[in-house]
Amino acid sequence: MSRLDTGSATLLGPGDDAAVVRAADGRVVASTDVLVEGRHFRRDWCGPADVGHRAAAANLADIAAMGATPTALLVAFCLPANLDIAWAEGLADGLTAEAALCGAAVVGGDMSSSPTLTVSVTALGDLGGREPVRRGGAQPGDLLALSGRVGYAAAGYTILSRGFRTPKILVEAYRRPVVRYAAGPEAARLGATSMIDVSDGLLQDVGHLATASLVGIDIRSDAFEVPDQMRDAATALGVDPYQWLLAGGEDHPLAATFPAGTPLPEGWTVIGSVHDGAGVTVDRKPWTGAVGWDHFR
Amino acid sequence: MSRLDTGSATLLGPGDDAAVVRAADGRVVASTDVLVEGRHFRRDWCGPADVGHRAAAANLADIAAMGATPTALLVAFCLPANLDIAWAEGLADGLTAEAALCGAAVVGGDMSSSPTLTVSVTALGDLGGREPVRRGGAQPGDLLALSGRVGYAAAGYTILSRGFRTPKILVEAYRRPVVRYAAGPEAARLGATSMIDVSDGLLQDVGHLATASLVGIDIRSDAFEVPDQMRDAATALGVDPYQWLLAGGEDHPLAATFPAGTPLPEGWTVIGSVHDGAGVTVDRKPWTGAVGWDHFR
Repeated sequence: MSRLDTGSATLLGPGDDAAVVRAADGRVVASTDVLVEGRHFRRDWCGPADVGHRAAAANLADIAAMGATPTALLVAFCLPANLDIAWAEGLADGLTAEAALCGAAVVGGDMSSSPTLTVSVTALGDLGGREPVRRGGAQPGDLLALSGRVGYAAAGYTILSRGFRTPKILVEAYRRPVVRYAAGPEAARLGATSMIDVSDGLLQDVGHLATASLVGIDIRSDAFEVPDQMRDAATALGVDPYQWLLAGGEDHPLAATFPAGTPLPEGWTVIGSVHDGAGVTVDRKPWTGAVGWDHFR
Repeated sequence: MSRLDTGSATLLGPGDDAAVVRAADGRVVASTDVLVEGRHFRRDWCGPADVGHRAAAANLADIAAMGATPTALLVAFCLPANLDIAWAEGLADGLTAEAALCGAAVVGGDMSSSPTLTVSVTALGDLGGREPVRRGGAQPGDLLALSGRVGYAAAGYTILSRGFRTPKILVEAYRRPVVRYAAGPEAARLGATSMIDVSDGLLQDVGHLATASLVGIDIRSDAFEVPDQMRDAATALGVDPYQWLLAGGEDHPLAATFPAGTPLPEGWTVIGSVHDGAGVTVDRKPWTGAVGWDHFR
């Protein structure tokens, strides 16, 4: 794996039986996600580096959502025997490049032939002495805030699935999510009471916060500014853009709750509030569209 | 993942965006291995718990081979849509049970449908304040020692591939390796200069020690006692039992080099020595049979 650069937390990188990664605060945060061709990605929609970026981002965002800083990735590639070696190299390059965006490195991996192209990634992270921000700490009265783009990847997915290739900003958002990894530790320092990475749609993932915290959460639709290109694409395709914003996955923004009055820095948008009750509402009413995102289903 | 027990190093188990695992000495050891149906296992040869044990053992042995104690596993399952749920549960049970043998726990995972049954495992471990034992530290004059069974799984594989089901001890060894995980940290405390887990055959893996250490290593064939049942099976099948002992994989014994005169406790057998030069010899001669193990090809 000579194409895989190592980062500052890497004490021993690829090449031995295992890697050794710094875990300065005596704990390590760890998460695993697997991407399967035909279910999580299509080679005709995404290049190899895109798939690498997406696989890394899905895992690194999980680390950020605990309030931690990613330190390392381990990757298991399952590659069809007829796959072009350049494709596999592009995949590794994409993983390495996405990890580097948050100072992490690919420290280990395994490779096997398989009839099904599969990329399984484990991300490690460092809490920097802080407590992990879990899903279950939201309190009635808290505000709900979002950091990062939402709805872009879902719009790109719809565009691609209808056979189009533009607008580029939406298609590229589907190919390579833009994740604000630093927002995770930032939220922890600001006193976030709960946090999750929105990978399956805002309503569904905020629903996980509500369920784990035993509260209700209301999302305000007027908190979202629908970008012009998203609105135009929605009109052209006959789609409600709020379906993308509220139920679209794979952008990996962070959704977090904070005590009311917490001054939130740039990059966070208040989109709702926590109350006694259960479940997630939009403008105090149940959402009548699809609430989640099941990849290609 | 309610079937997955958590161990003593688990600070936060499955259910949130990521797990949190104790890394008491400020570092974490990490390794990933993937098992693909038809390449690394067959469902007609191994039950679901067997596959779980094997997938866990392959990873846990890598952690032990660094001189570390395993603390946690993360698992990505890719399961065909028609797979019996009981099979998937058995797989999880096998992983959990094997991890428990060395005090580790399954702390996280992911699941996806896939046409190809695949189990990707990441193991984490703790060095307990010691330096990792790498592959590259063997010195001329060192002795080479082995801890754990060798050749058993290869014998079991040959027996199964010829359509037989006995002797049970060999077939079971293929289905569920018996790994001496504690031998890894023990070797580190004894001053091992290099170490590897023998997953691909003794000659091939000891070859990795020789290459990384820039030394030659000689294995003495009279150091091995061929067990009666292995000898009888070899005779019945027309196989040289030394082919199993020297080139058979998947038992995951640990092979380590130690300074000459190191008193080795029970469980370790001296099988050779390190000298100036390059490559691996058997009784000072090149081995003329196959040197490695490539699963099902």
